[in-house]
Amino acid sequence: MNPTFSVRATDGAARVGSLTTAHGVIDTPAFMPVGTYGTVKAMTPEELAGLGAQIILGNTFHLLLRPGPEIIAAHGGLHRFMHWPHPLLTDSGGFQVFSLRSLRRISEEGVRFRSPVDGREVRLTPEDSMDVQLALRSDIAMALDDCTPHPATEAEARASMERSMRWAARSHAHYYGAGGAAPPPGGLFGIVQGGMYLPLRLASLEALLRLPWPGLAVGGLAVGESEEERLAVLEGLVPHLPADRPRYLMGVGRPEDIVAAVLRGIDMFDCVMPTRHARNGHLFTSTGVINIRNSANAADLGPVDAACDCYTCRHFSRAYLRHLDRCNEILGARLNTIHNLHFYMELMRALRAAIAAGTLQEWSRSFLGVQNCQR
Amino acid sequence: MNPTFSVRATDGAARVGSLTTAHGVIDTPAFMPVGTYGTVKAMTPEELAGLGAQIILGNTFHLLLRPGPEIIAAHGGLHRFMHWPHPLLTDSGGFQVFSLRSLRRISEEGVRFRSPVDGREVRLTPEDSMDVQLALRSDIAMALDDCTPHPATEAEARASMERSMRWAARSHAHYYGAGGAAPPPGGLFGIVQGGMYLPLRLASLEALLRLPWPGLAVGGLAVGESEEERLAVLEGLVPHLPADRPRYLMGVGRPEDIVAAVLRGIDMFDCVMPTRHARNGHLFTSTGVINIRNSANAADLGPVDAACDCYTCRHFSRAYLRHLDRCNEILGARLNTIHNLHFYMELMRALRAAIAAGTLQEWSRSFLGVQNCQR
Repeated sequence: MNPTFSVRATDGAARVGSLTTAHGVIDTPAFMPVGTYGTVKAMTPEELAGLGAQIILGNTFHLLLRPGPEIIAAHGGLHRFMHWPHPLLTDSGGFQVFSLRSLRRISEEGVRFRSPVDGREVRLTPEDSMDVQLALRSDIAMALDDCTPHPATEAEARASMERSMRWAARSHAHYYGAGGAAPPPGGLFGIVQGGMYLPLRLASLEALLRLPWPGLAVGGLAVGESEEERLAVLEGLVPHLPADRPRYLMGVGRPEDIVAAVLRGIDMFDCVMPTRHARNGHLFTSTGVINIRNSANAADLGPVDAACDCYTCRHFSRAYLRHLDRCNEILGARLNTIHNLHFYMELMRALRAAIAAGTLQEWSRSFLGVQNCQR
Repeated sequence: MNPTFSVRATDGAARVGSLTTAHGVIDTPAFMPVGTYGTVKAMTPEELAGLGAQIILGNTFHLLLRPGPEIIAAHGGLHRFMHWPHPLLTDSGGFQVFSLRSLRRISEEGVRFRSPVDGREVRLTPEDSMDVQLALRSDIAMALDDCTPHPATEAEARASMERSMRWAARSHAHYYGAGGAAPPPGGLFGIVQGGMYLPLRLASLEALLRLPWPGLAVGGLAVGESEEERLAVLEGLVPHLPADRPRYLMGVGRPEDIVAAVLRGIDMFDCVMPTRHARNGHLFTSTGVINIRNSANAADLGPVDAACDCYTCRHFSRAYLRHLDRCNEILGARLNTIHNLHFYMELMRALRAAIAAGTLQEWSRSFLGVQNCQR
């Protein structure tokens, strides 16, 4: 079924809403932990749900290579394969393929690339991406787009965006038509491209809106642009996005980036930062990021964050976490991941509460003030 | 407090008992998962307890090197450091030090060795080992022994055993005397040595029994001897061990080895096998060990063991576990560890039930028949 969206409250440009899918309802603004290979690294599904995750992201590129869509389809889809009964979003695979650089060839048809796993040639067209995402049976699938490099000239960004719009139309036709009379298991989101050029962004949106997408994403950000460039795109583009549909900012990001984007009307986020940072010993706290590997933590009997009530902070000291990290213990990666995901989930809860209470400006100033002090 | 032991039922030489410590009661025969660096690899304390683990083992050698006893003592001991409120046994550190071979020098005083972590020289005398174990505040500590190499001549085994007995007396005096009037937090077990020579084993036992140990261990097995040699030592020695005290066979072992030793009157076991095997993809099942990495599992939608009701088998397919293993995902190590520890805990439950019911011979024949078929 196509996801449906309703806005429950607004505060300036920010919105609190409900996104309903076949596998459950997602409160927005929402953060989606990334489950690259059919697992959010180090976590069980029950732990993720317990932390408040209502939707997670699966990577089509990675799952296409390992274990392959046939094996996941034989399980009845990604939900059952990974034992995650709640909503799932899959990306198109395009972002990772474009990141391969030397190993890929792009044409109007799509992309061909050498698998970094076993060297075989793999084709990814808009139709291929839809077929994989349909096999995964995700609740939200993403159109395949041509990922604009950064920096790009206006001409480069235009050509890339225009190809993305042709691929978006092919994605839409295949996703909603592949099953014949049978409706797809979820809905397909379109992706606005156009690089850092606002007129191209608006042209991209206009092209997309010829088709009935249940949600729209902003792609091509979090690619190395400055904060000013990113916010300029959001401020110029988001007011033109349909208010009745969810808005997903792909690949963003740091807590302060999420707050800035929510203030400008974004509803959905994904990023590997909380999970990857955790495995590298970087932990988010109410007063900024700490590195648990720092020798100052060696004999610290206190928790990572005295203001945090996550499982890790309730039961384990900084000294213990540093010890686990030094010994490369799996439990260290687990406890750090629990802490960081809890931080992100609490951030989203606080944002939703502040929007509902009409106090988002005040809350954000306070939050960004504390976090920026620590840079 | 010294642990206390009571036998509730016997079946031949096998016994079902209760071992009571300051942190709780352990049903015997018991298997102790190994928590080398203050964590049973990949598991939280709650998961271990949920699997039925009533006692785990901490490694004095590893914790001495990282993070060091001072940091653990500052937390109030190993229980609090690692958030494990249940019984803990610590080994003496001797076994690992003796395994260093080229990096260690042994004298009557004790052992000096180069830390494999940072190269500094470390001393481990019986008194040092007791000081570390007292700092860890384990419920059961182990005397430091001179680990007899295998194979060893009778003269070598005798000299090593006699040194172990002198070290055992020094361990006992220091453990129970170090606190002055204050009693130690747990109790100290003596270790019978003597290699594969039964007369030396009996002489070792006689020497140990001059002191009031709350439990006795059989050391120097699981060192590369044949099954026949090991069983000959157990059959010759165990009938002479005091019936009113727990008997701990150190470092053993495979499920079939545990069954054979329980049949001969052993009460306690530890081994890294279930956890290490799990991380290497070797999984115990009711019909023998399987290797999840085998390509036959690539598209297998069934569980590891249809007869198993562990979390892993209830929710995940062999294909998913193989996929996680291939992608080196932390969740794979977790799910495999849960399964293997569940297998060991169920084995111990079944052994206790069979002893209590007086059906151990029958149960063991059936169990060993199935497991041996798979070799």
